[in-house]
Amino acid sequence: MSTDASSIDPRVKRSRRLICEAAIAELGEVGYGAMTIESIARRAGVGKATVYRHWNGKLDLIESALESISTDMVIPASGTARERARAVLNWLATYLGDNTALGSSCLPAMVSAAQYDDSVREFHQRFSAERRRVLTDIIDAGKASGEIRSDADARLLAEMLVGPLFYRRLMSGTAFPAQRVDEILDVVFD
Amino acid sequence: MSTDASSIDPRVKRSRRLICEAAIAELGEVGYGAMTIESIARRAGVGKATVYRHWNGKLDLIESALESISTDMVIPASGTARERARAVLNWLATYLGDNTALGSSCLPAMVSAAQYDDSVREFHQRFSAERRRVLTDIIDAGKASGEIRSDADARLLAEMLVGPLFYRRLMSGTAFPAQRVDEILDVVFD
Repeated sequence: MSTDASSIDPRVKRSRRLICEAAIAELGEVGYGAMTIESIARRAGVGKATVYRHWNGKLDLIESALESISTDMVIPASGTARERARAVLNWLATYLGDNTALGSSCLPAMVSAAQYDDSVREFHQRFSAERRRVLTDIIDAGKASGEIRSDADARLLAEMLVGPLFYRRLMSGTAFPAQRVDEILDVVFD
Repeated sequence: MSTDASSIDPRVKRSRRLICEAAIAELGEVGYGAMTIESIARRAGVGKATVYRHWNGKLDLIESALESISTDMVIPASGTARERARAVLNWLATYLGDNTALGSSCLPAMVSAAQYDDSVREFHQRFSAERRRVLTDIIDAGKASGEIRSDADARLLAEMLVGPLFYRRLMSGTAFPAQRVDEILDVVFD
């Protein structure tokens, strides 16, 4: 998105937020291929021109929308590596646990679109990598502090931490319970 | 599928196999929603009636097709739990590693269809659970033999083992290299 969000007036801000929410709901409901700027605009109760005033197309809009949703991600600045990893996993378990929540409901659609569309794939991978870095930074801190074996691969451990959460969301019917996050941490931090 | 595969003649068997391959290729290419018995029949070079002679509909056909693909899954009967888990993960890394291989190419489509279609979800979860059990059985054996902490949750450890493989296939662009499977095993079996 090209507009500086801090300088825009509240009405425009509210309209943008409504359009973002409509875009994610639409993506979750019909998938990336079937979703159009027209169907998103209709859902948000605005004209197509309003959407095109802010975004170049549907991927541009989805990028804004997913970025805005994940700003509530918990990234603790202090505590042990284990405490910080627990906070992140708790957030993720809650986020992925509700299949009907905006961000989680459109995850299968993003996974599927990434298989077929090069631009979506590029965004999906970049978006995942940025979020993964929160956890690899924490693991690196844990290696430095001696909480984690110093020869461990931070990316691999991060993937083992989030693996059960994503696996259950995408391959299994039940969500991973946030209260069992410590059992995952036990394996990596032991 | 209702026919007993062992009693059918080779020409019918070959035709069934071609139709199964066409179904999975079609699923991977256009997704579950857009795929039809007609498009599968066209792809396999047979008539719709031939497909309906063997299967009730597209989910019935996809079930047969995915079952037939995964029969090459490596399930070692002997060895330590770690050796057996390594063989399974090696197989899975290779299976998931090639995005264009039949079974792997249709995984995002199945993940997405499971979000929207109750019958697909039921099958997808059952299919995953059956394959996961191979690994939980091995982990249970490892707990019994003392290779793994006896109070560990087998399902959770299985998900931590396969987590990085599924995460990379579905959330990241790079496949998990089969030669690094031992690094995953190190974390769980240490």
